[in-house]
Amino acid sequence: MKDSSNSITKRSEDFSQWYLDVIDSADMAEHAPVRGCMIIKPYGYAIWENIQKVLDAKFKEKGVQNAYFPLLIPESFMTKEADHIEGFAPECATVTRVGSKKLEEDYIIRPTSETIIYDTFAKWLESYRDLPLLINQWCNVMRWELRPRLFLRTSEFLWQEGHTCHYTSEEADNFAREMLEVYKDFQQDFMATPVIAGEKTESERFAGALRTYTVEAMMQDGKAVQNGTSHFFGTGFASHFGVEFLDKDNQLKNPATTSWGVSTRMIGSLIMTHSDDLGLVLPPKIAPIQVVIVPFLSNKEDQNKEVLEKVNQIEIDLKKIGVATKLDKRDMRFGEKMFEWEKKGVPVRLEFGPKDMAKNQCVLARRDTGEKTVVNLDNLTQEVSDLLDKIQTNLFDRALKYQKEKTVEVTTWEEFTKAIEEGNFVVANYDGTKETEKKIKEELKATTRCIPFEIEQNVSGKCVYSGNEAKVRVIFGRSY
Amino acid sequence: MKDSSNSITKRSEDFSQWYLDVIDSADMAEHAPVRGCMIIKPYGYAIWENIQKVLDAKFKEKGVQNAYFPLLIPESFMTKEADHIEGFAPECATVTRVGSKKLEEDYIIRPTSETIIYDTFAKWLESYRDLPLLINQWCNVMRWELRPRLFLRTSEFLWQEGHTCHYTSEEADNFAREMLEVYKDFQQDFMATPVIAGEKTESERFAGALRTYTVEAMMQDGKAVQNGTSHFFGTGFASHFGVEFLDKDNQLKNPATTSWGVSTRMIGSLIMTHSDDLGLVLPPKIAPIQVVIVPFLSNKEDQNKEVLEKVNQIEIDLKKIGVATKLDKRDMRFGEKMFEWEKKGVPVRLEFGPKDMAKNQCVLARRDTGEKTVVNLDNLTQEVSDLLDKIQTNLFDRALKYQKEKTVEVTTWEEFTKAIEEGNFVVANYDGTKETEKKIKEELKATTRCIPFEIEQNVSGKCVYSGNEAKVRVIFGRSY
Repeated sequence: MKDSSNSITKRSEDFSQWYLDVIDSADMAEHAPVRGCMIIKPYGYAIWENIQKVLDAKFKEKGVQNAYFPLLIPESFMTKEADHIEGFAPECATVTRVGSKKLEEDYIIRPTSETIIYDTFAKWLESYRDLPLLINQWCNVMRWELRPRLFLRTSEFLWQEGHTCHYTSEEADNFAREMLEVYKDFQQDFMATPVIAGEKTESERFAGALRTYTVEAMMQDGKAVQNGTSHFFGTGFASHFGVEFLDKDNQLKNPATTSWGVSTRMIGSLIMTHSDDLGLVLPPKIAPIQVVIVPFLSNKEDQNKEVLEKVNQIEIDLKKIGVATKLDKRDMRFGEKMFEWEKKGVPVRLEFGPKDMAKNQCVLARRDTGEKTVVNLDNLTQEVSDLLDKIQTNLFDRALKYQKEKTVEVTTWEEFTKAIEEGNFVVANYDGTKETEKKIKEELKATTRCIPFEIEQNVSGKCVYSGNEAKVRVIFGRSY
Repeated sequence: MKDSSNSITKRSEDFSQWYLDVIDSADMAEHAPVRGCMIIKPYGYAIWENIQKVLDAKFKEKGVQNAYFPLLIPESFMTKEADHIEGFAPECATVTRVGSKKLEEDYIIRPTSETIIYDTFAKWLESYRDLPLLINQWCNVMRWELRPRLFLRTSEFLWQEGHTCHYTSEEADNFAREMLEVYKDFQQDFMATPVIAGEKTESERFAGALRTYTVEAMMQDGKAVQNGTSHFFGTGFASHFGVEFLDKDNQLKNPATTSWGVSTRMIGSLIMTHSDDLGLVLPPKIAPIQVVIVPFLSNKEDQNKEVLEKVNQIEIDLKKIGVATKLDKRDMRFGEKMFEWEKKGVPVRLEFGPKDMAKNQCVLARRDTGEKTVVNLDNLTQEVSDLLDKIQTNLFDRALKYQKEKTVEVTTWEEFTKAIEEGNFVVANYDGTKETEKKIKEELKATTRCIPFEIEQNVSGKCVYSGNEAKVRVIFGRSY
């Protein structure tokens, strides 16, 4: 059996191993006996369910409807858009037989569903009255992964992919940005993860997109995780797939389209944003268990009965106000339970024992700071609810402070190199060429994360690498 | 454009075509450009979401936790249980390459996940303290289908599969039956579909199971749909996959296991149970839209404004009491809207026009009976809520009456033949041999549906087919 108190590598020693240890000790996921795939265990999956619940409601508020499209895509579909096939072909798992019978045409397992969805939209869309067409699906996709990493990069992952058609390019582009805003708000308000929203440079765009918008989060090692993207295709994709509508003027036209998605990768980002050397730390708004009640039990049966009656009541009271509460009555040592819930990142631990009984009080221990407060039971529900809010805010503020501290503006290549090597996000002038991006990547393993919306793009000056005239101000960083 | 009022074939003319017409005219699903697969359109998918919401809550009440296992299964896993591989191998879509690279071992797309889940359970399960282990996943599965039929039989379908491990065989068998009870209650209480619960005969069992329990529903053509199954494996499956726990006596033992599932096929059953020659009929408790408000609009703008203000308020009031309400303000003829919602099976249509304004009333039209009632707006929410209950009950009662009328008990082969050919469920004595089942299937295309729990199994007498001594009393029928 594992020594439960010492099984997590320190972040400062080996960040990668720490990440895997946190996942393992919180019982979230494990590698599957299938190349690059993972098994999402109940505790990890419960986080995904919470993510789905919140996002799904947000999509529906925007008028988006869910549907379901086939897992398999005829291989010929993928070749209709040249950039798209080039981007995905080498990662496509391909079905070539059923039982022992060879198929006439091979099918690929969807790496993303643009091709089959556009083929369908071509049938669904008839008139300008059908616009906008706003569709989403929650599903599994597959992109073969040679260097898998739980949640962050797996051959199969779970995601949602939204696909929409619009009357004008302007409307489509706005919608793509609106959905990015949904992702940003969700990550900031629920995941307590500050993100930088912006546009990808040309070479980092989704295969076939005219514009790719992204939200980028900074991990505790200074590296970036791309936490969600939203693409604007103009009318190009629709045209390749024959998606048309009859306009008011009786002309057939191609709609402008978008697609946007987030995946189980967000869980990896969540872990690396908030967790510490004791294990997982979860923001209350996304935690499967927000409060765990751990009673102090003794060998006196009468006393235990009273304690258990009281904590039962506390559980009922907290559930009544909508707090996801778990009462841990297991026959185990207090310390063992404490470590377990700590490693699982439960935001608040409520301790209650015989001594508290007389004083009508309990202890609330915060997972984020370790701080303990004694609280009168008469005010308990209010105190717990306030504390959960406080933890949610603290986690966001803490992560934001870190991100700000580790984002530096530079003007020289020397500063740039140093800042990247010290694990920062680096804001710098860039000449907009693929060549420069390629060189920087080769030399420093840093890539353009995005052209941030919030940074003034009234650029003058020289590119930090080439010295040529700068086109944009970009955030560079190393990334997962 | 389709003539919206006459596009549905009559049930009496061609039941199969009627079924497809209902799906098409309600805009629920369509065939995909992938052999045997379907695209579930938003209206069909919304029904699946409602099904998931209710069932998922019921599973969680039983202590079941959701998780996610890989889509792909190493082909070698399937061969570990001889019956299991024999049952599924010919239908397995197989991945043999990624991009242009051949794989070292081929992977099959899960037709069901016992093999990969048991491989995982072998790692998860350590001690008797870990029991029971109750896991479920919602996912897509694939069983290649040569004669596909929307919802009922598709190469890919959506389902849930529960997999559990228990300390004793008795506990596992009880749990398998408990989950069947969950399915039965769900179908009767929410889908308004009466089902017959029972055990499958040996030849109809799930590949590898010791016992398969089933719920069977009768369609309006007298044919059966198997709407859900629950399997008891004893310790056999666990033993094949090395799933063991350390018992109190320090011995390693195999747990007894179960699996159970329902799928999008239930939507096919829902359609064929309740719908009529006008289109889809949905039970209120599962309908994406329970009440559609269709205002009568005129060419007088002032009047329209008043009408729209009132129906807006009605929409708000109904939503407030939890009724899924849609206000149809589109600029279309009243009749056209009416037909559309009729074909979509919305349980209640609320009509409101200028004349109703003065009288403070509206009209409620029932989809199930066509009946219209004038209702005072002061009592509207209560009236609507009562009416939805009434429709729910009526649909169930109507389907149950039909099922009872079309279930006949016979003693002779002549009676049996006639009853089957007239499209009944037939209760008869049966000798329990595979041989007899096979012959009956060949001669009459009828199969054993189940050994019903509700029928006294104190059997004496002769088998209706062989004349040999009867072992059980079984329901026979033709099926989908």
